[in-house]
Amino acid sequence: MNAQPNVEVCLSPQLLHLYPLQNRVVVIVDVLRATSTIITALAHEVAGIIPVAKLEQCEAYKRLGFITAAERDGKKAEGFDLGNSPFSYMAEELKGKTIVFTTTNGTEAISKSSSASLILIGGFLNITALSKFLIEKNQDTLLLCAAWKGKPNIEDTLFTGALLHKLLPHFSSSTDDNLLALSLYQQSMLNKWELIQKSSHVKRLQGLGIERDIEFCLSEDLYPVVPYFNGEALVI
Amino acid sequence: MNAQPNVEVCLSPQLLHLYPLQNRVVVIVDVLRATSTIITALAHEVAGIIPVAKLEQCEAYKRLGFITAAERDGKKAEGFDLGNSPFSYMAEELKGKTIVFTTTNGTEAISKSSSASLILIGGFLNITALSKFLIEKNQDTLLLCAAWKGKPNIEDTLFTGALLHKLLPHFSSSTDDNLLALSLYQQSMLNKWELIQKSSHVKRLQGLGIERDIEFCLSEDLYPVVPYFNGEALVI
Repeated sequence: MNAQPNVEVCLSPQLLHLYPLQNRVVVIVDVLRATSTIITALAHEVAGIIPVAKLEQCEAYKRLGFITAAERDGKKAEGFDLGNSPFSYMAEELKGKTIVFTTTNGTEAISKSSSASLILIGGFLNITALSKFLIEKNQDTLLLCAAWKGKPNIEDTLFTGALLHKLLPHFSSSTDDNLLALSLYQQSMLNKWELIQKSSHVKRLQGLGIERDIEFCLSEDLYPVVPYFNGEALVI
Repeated sequence: MNAQPNVEVCLSPQLLHLYPLQNRVVVIVDVLRATSTIITALAHEVAGIIPVAKLEQCEAYKRLGFITAAERDGKKAEGFDLGNSPFSYMAEELKGKTIVFTTTNGTEAISKSSSASLILIGGFLNITALSKFLIEKNQDTLLLCAAWKGKPNIEDTLFTGALLHKLLPHFSSSTDDNLLALSLYQQSMLNKWELIQKSSHVKRLQGLGIERDIEFCLSEDLYPVVPYFNGEALVI
């Protein structure tokens, strides 16, 4: 029997209890900006990123001497070393270092997925490498959108549509969530940037000067790496 | 000040806690088939429909002598008078009667919305009458998709996109859920039937002989009525 593995999109961590995780690969998607930043950091030779869901956990690591990164509501949280801009993670002095990282949505999605058999990090920055890895892996897969405080968002849904488009010849896909994501992708594939300009995320962050970040996070295949969670940290 | 009221889509009752209900009009959307059936029944002079979330509640009403209707997983539940097919609600002998009704998704969405200022019932069957009513009402509005056991579905999302399209000149709309629904609508406006054929609902119900129901539920403006919940029953 050569049944294809199954791939399914979950539009929000608040719906995750409706989707099985056991024996599944989970891809965490937080395009703006957590997973894009994680991909960038690891591609620039950061040794590992320890994701934590709460600011207090991040503070505890800081007291132990770790480099810490924290973002809340799009801004760098007070008292930590780094925010959530991918450009901050290209620095020479971070090479070989382990960074403890918390963000509004992305790190919560990771912590909720702990019962999956493998947790991967996805974004436009690694879309082709990730799709090749998943096709090779040939296992049931869930694409988990980090969303915005529980509400489905455009950029993560769009990315899952783009990834599904690459996966579908090799996976079975029959859910309405998948159809929604694919429809969004097909509707906007020629002008991703225009769609994202309408997103609540971009409107929310107007004036914070992150236009350059957003453009960067929408770039495809800058880094052919597939970060995974080794039980303690995200590494490649 | 002439600020426009706000309209927002919620893709699943499981996300409803993220959306304010107070002082809002809520439109319950369960195109296949609960809200379409409710619209049909009331347009055919059923006096009222008492929505209950659980089969046990429906049984209790049956013991009191009420006409009862129950659907679970697309099928008529054993021991009740009626199922969830709109064609069953056109009968002469139901005119003037009150029916107690429970369905897999739709009636739960209604019961979860009790703190809204007004609960309305929407579907393609009444889309124009409903949109005119909402524009006239000029109040903040939430479009609540009943979904399928918590998971967002195609038919309800598509309907909210179609309704948004009619409402947008008169409402402010800035959420990503709205963009998702509108994108689905724009992608498929020329061929609703083709999209719905791909939905998990239609696949799930293949063989149950409800193709005629589905085609009926996708018909626009058969009934210019706007059912609302009066605290006890859905009436027009």
